[in-house]
Amino acid sequence: MASKTGAISERVVARLSQYRRLLNVLAAEGATHVLSRELASLAGRTAAQVRRDLMALGYAGSSARGYEVAGLLASIRAFLDQPGGQGVALVGVGNLGKALLTHFTGRRPNLAIAAAFDTDPSKANRTINQCRVWAMGHLKDVLKAKKIRVAIIAVPPEAAQAVADALAAAGVRGILNFAPVRLRVPEGVYVEDLDMTVSLEKVAYFARRGADAP
Amino acid sequence: MASKTGAISERVVARLSQYRRLLNVLAAEGATHVLSRELASLAGRTAAQVRRDLMALGYAGSSARGYEVAGLLASIRAFLDQPGGQGVALVGVGNLGKALLTHFTGRRPNLAIAAAFDTDPSKANRTINQCRVWAMGHLKDVLKAKKIRVAIIAVPPEAAQAVADALAAAGVRGILNFAPVRLRVPEGVYVEDLDMTVSLEKVAYFARRGADAP
Repeated sequence: MASKTGAISERVVARLSQYRRLLNVLAAEGATHVLSRELASLAGRTAAQVRRDLMALGYAGSSARGYEVAGLLASIRAFLDQPGGQGVALVGVGNLGKALLTHFTGRRPNLAIAAAFDTDPSKANRTINQCRVWAMGHLKDVLKAKKIRVAIIAVPPEAAQAVADALAAAGVRGILNFAPVRLRVPEGVYVEDLDMTVSLEKVAYFARRGADAP
Repeated sequence: MASKTGAISERVVARLSQYRRLLNVLAAEGATHVLSRELASLAGRTAAQVRRDLMALGYAGSSARGYEVAGLLASIRAFLDQPGGQGVALVGVGNLGKALLTHFTGRRPNLAIAAAFDTDPSKANRTINQCRVWAMGHLKDVLKAKKIRVAIIAVPPEAAQAVADALAAAGVRGILNFAPVRLRVPEGVYVEDLDMTVSLEKVAYFARRGADAP
């Protein structure tokens, strides 16, 4: 398993996650085997890259019939997922936070939002999409009790750094950050930035520019 | 204005959108001026890069007091926004589509979801978050009538390419794609891929790996 080498890159992890989503679709459609070039075509990659990525996973050798879909899914699961699942904390239950609860609830049982937090006392102690909302003061206790090490930041930009500090102090090692600020975090904490507004503004800008687009 | 040169890059557009979000926060806090290094620190950039980006915008010369916040916001608006606003179409009103309606409604009056579409007839002719949902058969007519050239794809992966084809045929020139497939589109159509599940899986993976993270 490549995970033992510790040398797997961010891009490979992202592609394995993408392959899994596509393989789940193929499995639901009844496919038992898939050729590397079929998977590559769906994913917008080359067949050579798909084979290289799956080899990094320790899954070698596609026969003439291609990869066995169920076996490949099991290998990706063994690589990407923590046995028993990983709980995720959500901080910020405004419009974006509620949207994320809607999106992620029930989607990935292995990676579910297990607790939500908000500074607004009127939101605390409520349950939204089967997820309990806590006051911020309970962050550390709840995260320790639930062994949560992954968090989503969906608070306004001016609050994001303080939330990141509190999450890191509570033992969080990975943050998906929806606020448009660059977070300063201790070494060993992984941050991925994702700004949907910026993405939509980019699309709108280049839609107007048309053929000028890069 | 750099827009006249047509040479502005995707990265500059994304950074200008990010600066605007941060400047709006500063303005709301009562700031009238901002130094390039203050904006740079919030955005996680260097002061030199901030100055370069704003010069590309045609906004030169920060005095000792820095940039005037209101003037800078007006310049970014003139650059990024279409006068009179740009309507956005959403295709797919499942969990993710509903989440996006919640997130984008009322957020950016200049760039609002003006029509939603779904293949499920039980969703058509309803109004969700003030947005009318149409059956897919009405896509072309509604987009032409509302002059919509920007769209969001929030459908399952196996349906995404057919939706992209229909959008391009209806005159859409920019697509924000939440499906985990690489879309084939005609020249002149800009596509930005955004997969929240892949991002969260990456964060979860590197949170487990801890110090091995890149």
